[in-house]
Amino acid sequence: MVNEYFKNRKTIRRYSSQDVPEGLLKELIAAAAGAPTTGGMQLYSVVVTRDSEMKRQLAPHHFFQKMVSEAPVVLTFCADFNRMDKWCEASDAVPCYGNFQSFLSAMLDVTVFAQQFNTAAEMAGLGCCYIGTTTYNAPQIAETLKLPPMVLPVVTLTVGYPAEPDAEPKAERLPLEAIMHDETYQDYDRERIKALYAEKESLAINKQYVEENGKSSLAQVFTDVRYPKSNNEAFSKVFVDFMQAQGFKIPF
Amino acid sequence: MVNEYFKNRKTIRRYSSQDVPEGLLKELIAAAAGAPTTGGMQLYSVVVTRDSEMKRQLAPHHFFQKMVSEAPVVLTFCADFNRMDKWCEASDAVPCYGNFQSFLSAMLDVTVFAQQFNTAAEMAGLGCCYIGTTTYNAPQIAETLKLPPMVLPVVTLTVGYPAEPDAEPKAERLPLEAIMHDETYQDYDRERIKALYAEKESLAINKQYVEENGKSSLAQVFTDVRYPKSNNEAFSKVFVDFMQAQGFKIPF
Repeated sequence: MVNEYFKNRKTIRRYSSQDVPEGLLKELIAAAAGAPTTGGMQLYSVVVTRDSEMKRQLAPHHFFQKMVSEAPVVLTFCADFNRMDKWCEASDAVPCYGNFQSFLSAMLDVTVFAQQFNTAAEMAGLGCCYIGTTTYNAPQIAETLKLPPMVLPVVTLTVGYPAEPDAEPKAERLPLEAIMHDETYQDYDRERIKALYAEKESLAINKQYVEENGKSSLAQVFTDVRYPKSNNEAFSKVFVDFMQAQGFKIPF
Repeated sequence: MVNEYFKNRKTIRRYSSQDVPEGLLKELIAAAAGAPTTGGMQLYSVVVTRDSEMKRQLAPHHFFQKMVSEAPVVLTFCADFNRMDKWCEASDAVPCYGNFQSFLSAMLDVTVFAQQFNTAAEMAGLGCCYIGTTTYNAPQIAETLKLPPMVLPVVTLTVGYPAEPDAEPKAERLPLEAIMHDETYQDYDRERIKALYAEKESLAINKQYVEENGKSSLAQVFTDVRYPKSNNEAFSKVFVDFMQAQGFKIPF
């Protein structure tokens, strides 16, 4: 039986004034650390922001999304080979992790850890929101949080008790057959794609986005407004330069 | 209250002969798709392997780890911008996702999706194991599973009912203070690192690894045996070349 939680969960963007107890937060971070991790290495760290001055400093790096200033707790999850490197250096071992595969391992580890935190927190009655701007302004976030070399901010979660959970939209998702392939990948032709995205395109909220932005299709809202080429390319350059400056070379 | 599941979960490497019902598998994949995703884009796909000939073909790409041949179900989770691109092309929109930030978004999406699958499956009584070799041999796995451009295999999970759950080791984890930082990152000096890793180093199983491999510290088992520089660098080159061949340019 699939736990009912998974069918009903939703992202929470508005929080009540109730604080998140420090004991609960620590228990949840410990629970998250029980998630799978590459070779048991735990290639991650989490920086906890509660201080309002620190939230004020982080706000512009997240383009002033209100969740960052309004949530009682902001968590910045970081891919982290610094601790591993320091352990090696203290143990007569020569670390060798400034390469792309090690970056990928740390990316997987930190994301699995963040998602297990998200699940444990939601199950404990908290609400969370992933903030997608962390990799866009990674250099500035790293400076604010004083991240050393071999540490990269990857994922931010805002955390608090839900203010109006019923007012938060339920996520829309593609039909199962759009994402699941039996034995080999079944590529999509134009007709199948149109069918798979038909329900998404028909939703009132999505028709509204198309109209408000003066576009002729929902896909254009993504390509021209939400994730335009110029932003994608500018932020790609920033991140690639920054990850190499932090010590993760491409390819090594 | 933190759900007890999180404190007790463990990775399962040995499976009973009981099959995983197709209906349950589909429900779990649908439950996983309820996880957070970048802009609602669901930048992932999962390829389901049940066929024994397909497992035989995948086995060498995972260095013949027995979980891949023995588990009733093998799931290859892929970062996927192919479906999004096809949707754009069918909607008079010009896709612009062959860049590093889009790669990162898809990496996050697929990992969150895989981890939500892992949690939902474990809660439903199944056992799972992350197979860490997927990014090492991504080109061969992509060929076997017929992945088109803009699709990269990232994470593999083997799935089945646990054969001997009590015999599987409970994961060892660093103390909470090793991974959690208040307000800003507190870097580690040699003394603090030694203290944080002391318990890990003292475990019988880890002392055995050090001895069996003729090393003088546990960290050397990681740097010299498990994740050596030569492997890290060779597989980094393979993946970086492959991701660019699949259409994700660095930086764009």
